[in-house]
Amino acid sequence: MSGGSWVPVPEGSDFSLHNLPYGIFRRAGEAARIGVAIGDQVLDLDALWREGLLDGGRKLPEGVFAHGSLNRFLSLGRPAWQSVRAGVLELLDGHSHAIRDVPGLAERALIERSEAEMLLPVEIGDFVDFYSSLEHASNMGAMLRPGGEPLLPNWRHLPVGYHGRAGSVVVSGTPVVRPWGQIVEDDGPPGFGPTGMLDFELEVGFIAGAPSAFGASVPIEQAPEHIFGCVLVNDWSARDIQRWENAPLGPFLGKSFMTSISPWVVTLDALAPYFVPGPAQTPPVLDYLRSDRDWAIDLDLEVTLASSTMIERDMDAEVISRTNFRTLYWNIAQQLAHVTSNGARLRTGDLFASGTVSGPGPRAYGSMIELTRSGERPIVLPDGSERTWLKDGDTIAMHGVCGHAEGVPPVGFGKVRGAVVPAP
Amino acid sequence: MSGGSWVPVPEGSDFSLHNLPYGIFRRAGEAARIGVAIGDQVLDLDALWREGLLDGGRKLPEGVFAHGSLNRFLSLGRPAWQSVRAGVLELLDGHSHAIRDVPGLAERALIERSEAEMLLPVEIGDFVDFYSSLEHASNMGAMLRPGGEPLLPNWRHLPVGYHGRAGSVVVSGTPVVRPWGQIVEDDGPPGFGPTGMLDFELEVGFIAGAPSAFGASVPIEQAPEHIFGCVLVNDWSARDIQRWENAPLGPFLGKSFMTSISPWVVTLDALAPYFVPGPAQTPPVLDYLRSDRDWAIDLDLEVTLASSTMIERDMDAEVISRTNFRTLYWNIAQQLAHVTSNGARLRTGDLFASGTVSGPGPRAYGSMIELTRSGERPIVLPDGSERTWLKDGDTIAMHGVCGHAEGVPPVGFGKVRGAVVPAP
Repeated sequence: MSGGSWVPVPEGSDFSLHNLPYGIFRRAGEAARIGVAIGDQVLDLDALWREGLLDGGRKLPEGVFAHGSLNRFLSLGRPAWQSVRAGVLELLDGHSHAIRDVPGLAERALIERSEAEMLLPVEIGDFVDFYSSLEHASNMGAMLRPGGEPLLPNWRHLPVGYHGRAGSVVVSGTPVVRPWGQIVEDDGPPGFGPTGMLDFELEVGFIAGAPSAFGASVPIEQAPEHIFGCVLVNDWSARDIQRWENAPLGPFLGKSFMTSISPWVVTLDALAPYFVPGPAQTPPVLDYLRSDRDWAIDLDLEVTLASSTMIERDMDAEVISRTNFRTLYWNIAQQLAHVTSNGARLRTGDLFASGTVSGPGPRAYGSMIELTRSGERPIVLPDGSERTWLKDGDTIAMHGVCGHAEGVPPVGFGKVRGAVVPAP
Repeated sequence: MSGGSWVPVPEGSDFSLHNLPYGIFRRAGEAARIGVAIGDQVLDLDALWREGLLDGGRKLPEGVFAHGSLNRFLSLGRPAWQSVRAGVLELLDGHSHAIRDVPGLAERALIERSEAEMLLPVEIGDFVDFYSSLEHASNMGAMLRPGGEPLLPNWRHLPVGYHGRAGSVVVSGTPVVRPWGQIVEDDGPPGFGPTGMLDFELEVGFIAGAPSAFGASVPIEQAPEHIFGCVLVNDWSARDIQRWENAPLGPFLGKSFMTSISPWVVTLDALAPYFVPGPAQTPPVLDYLRSDRDWAIDLDLEVTLASSTMIERDMDAEVISRTNFRTLYWNIAQQLAHVTSNGARLRTGDLFASGTVSGPGPRAYGSMIELTRSGERPIVLPDGSERTWLKDGDTIAMHGVCGHAEGVPPVGFGKVRGAVVPAP
C-alpha cells in the first residue's frame, strides 16, 4: 500500500496515516494535551509544536496543543485544521525524517496508546440529539402508537431533535451508574428506584468547530466550515423513567444521566472519501435543507455486548447489532442547517448526535428496545444468559469503520465502551 | 429605616443594602468584572479586593472578581458566598468608613449604573426549563387537548422539564431577532418563513453555584449548598414553529433562538426573608422531593409591553400581566433534587428556569398565548393598537420585586428587557 507511515500501523488498525483523528490524552503525572492517533501510538502535537515542526508558514496561537480540550484548536476554523492535518501527514509520511532527525523526539512525541489515558476530547457546548433514522423512528412509533402511523407528520419535513444534557457527556470507559428515577408499574402511582430497563443507543455525532454568529443561520453549503469531525455516541437510556416523564416536553432524566462518546474525533477531511448519496427524501425537503453535495457517510457500525461472566471467561463479546450510518435519513449538514435556521448560534464544541442508527432488519437495530421488541424477545448470549435490558456488569462497546472506498485504507473510529455498575 | 448604606439608595430602588445582587459589568474601554448593585451604582468588587478590603480572614483566589463571568466565584461554594456578602454588607453599612478612608477609592469603586454595560452574569452550563406552574400547564393543556384532562398523569408527581439551548441564553437588552422556521398553515405542507406567532414567557430561574459529583444525587436538604441565586427569565417562543416541531421530542427551534435573563443575580441569602410555604401538593410527593423548609418565594412579577409608537411618544409601557412567583407548584429545591435524582451532575452556571409563571385569572397569565387565548382575544394597547402576538418594535420588560416581608426593605430583581427586531 502506498502512502504508509514510518510509524508502524498494524494490519486492521483503525488509525492509518489516512485517518489521523484528534484526541486529548494524558500520561501518568503529566498535563493533558492534544494528540493524534497513529497505529498503536499517540502523536503528541504539543511536543512537535514546541520543536517548531507544526507551524509551517501559518502562525498558530502559542501552546494551542497544550490544552485539556480541543476547543481552542477547533475555534481556529478550517484553514488551521487543514494546515495542521497537512503538517502531520507530512511528518508521519514514510519519506519524512523530520521527527526522527531530532534526537530523542520520536521517543518523546510518540506514546504507546496503552500508556495514554484518553479524556473527553471537547468541552461540550450544547448537545443536540436527533431522531434521524427512518427505521428507528418507525420502530419506536410502532411501539408507542400501535395501529397508528409510525411516523408523525413532521418527521419527513425536518430533522426532529431535542437538546440533551451537555454536562452528562463523558468519554468512553466511564462507568455507567444505573440511574434511579420515577417508575410506574401496572398503572399504579410512581415509585422511586433504580431503572429496570437500562438500554443503549448506537449513534454517531459531529462536533462543531468554528462558531457562528447570533441571529445568522448557517447555509447548508457552509457546513464544512463549521463541522470539525465525528465521534461514536452511546446515548444510554432508562426506558421506564423515559416512558413516564416523556409527555409533553420530551426525553429528560431517562437520558440525562450519561452519554458516552469515543475519544478520537475523526475529521471531515479523513471522512471525505466515504461521503456517499443518502436515502432519497420524499417529499422533497425545503430549500434550506437541500445540498448539492453528498453528505451520507459510508460507515459500518457494530455493537457488542459482553456480560461480566463472558469477560471473566475471556470470551469474545457478542455482536448484537450491525448497521451502516449511510442509511440515516437526515444527514449531518441538514442537521446543522436546521439547528441554526432560527438564528441560534453555534459554539465551538457543540455536539450533534444522530439519534439511534437502526438499519433495515432486526439484526441492524441500534437499541435493546428495538432488538428485543421492548423486552418480548430476549437476546441469548454465548454464556447462555438472556437479556431484555442491560444487567449490572454488562459492557456495551460500539465500533465504527469506513472501509469501502476504493484504493483508500479503512478509516476507523475506535470504540466507545461502557460497563454498567449497580445503582448506588 | 435602620441598616442604611452610606451610598444613597433612592426610594423604591430594587437594590438596597439588603439585596446586594451580583452581576458582570464593563465600563467603556475596561475589562469586564464582578460588581454588586447598590442604589443607582455598581460596586466594583475587584477594586475592593485589590485594596485588601474583601479578603477578611478567608483566602479568596487571586483575582477572583476580575473575571468576565461569576463562575469562578460561584464555584467556591456557600462559605465563600456568605463571607463575601458579609464583607460587602459591612463595607456599605452607614457606619463604615473603610472605603471612604482610602483616598479616591469610593470614586474608583462606585460606578454609575448608567455608565456600566451589563453582560451575561454567568457562563451557562446546562439550561433546564421546567413547566412548574399549575395554571400555565393547565391553560396549555386545555388549549392543546381540548375536552381532555388539562394535566397529564405525571404532572403532579414530578417537575416536568426539558433541556433548552444554553448557548442561546443572553443578557437583558439583547435584541430579539424574529426567527425563521418551518410553519404549517391550514394543514398544508410546511413553508419556511419568519414566525407570525412570537411570544414571551415570564419565568424565574436559579443558578447553580457549587457543582455536584457524577452519579451522586443532591438531597433536597442540600439545595442551599448548590443554589447561588435567582434571575428573571424571558423564554422567547415562536408558537407556530413550536406547534409543528413539538411531537414527539418536545420544544426545540421554537424556543432555541433566544432566552433572555436579567443581569443581576439575587442571592438566596437576600431572598431568605421571602421564603414562604408553597401551594399544597396533592397527591403527596415522593420522599426525594420532600423538604422541611419553605421554598416558595414571595416575589411579585410584572410584565409590560411597549410598542415602538408608545416609546416614541414617551408613553408608559402597558402592564399586561401581574402575578406572584409563590404560586409555583414545584419549587426550586424540588427542581434541583429532581434533575440530579438520576445521578446527573450539576455544573457551576447551570440555569434552571421555572417555566411560564401564570397565576389564577386572565390578568395573571405569563405569556401571550394565554393572555389572548391563542390569539382569540387581542390585548388593546394605550396607543389603540391590538396585539395577539408580538410585533417588530415591541419591547417586553419583566420586573420582579420581593416586597412583603415585615421590617425588611424590598429586594428587587431589576428588569429583563428585549425589543423585537425584524427577521433578517
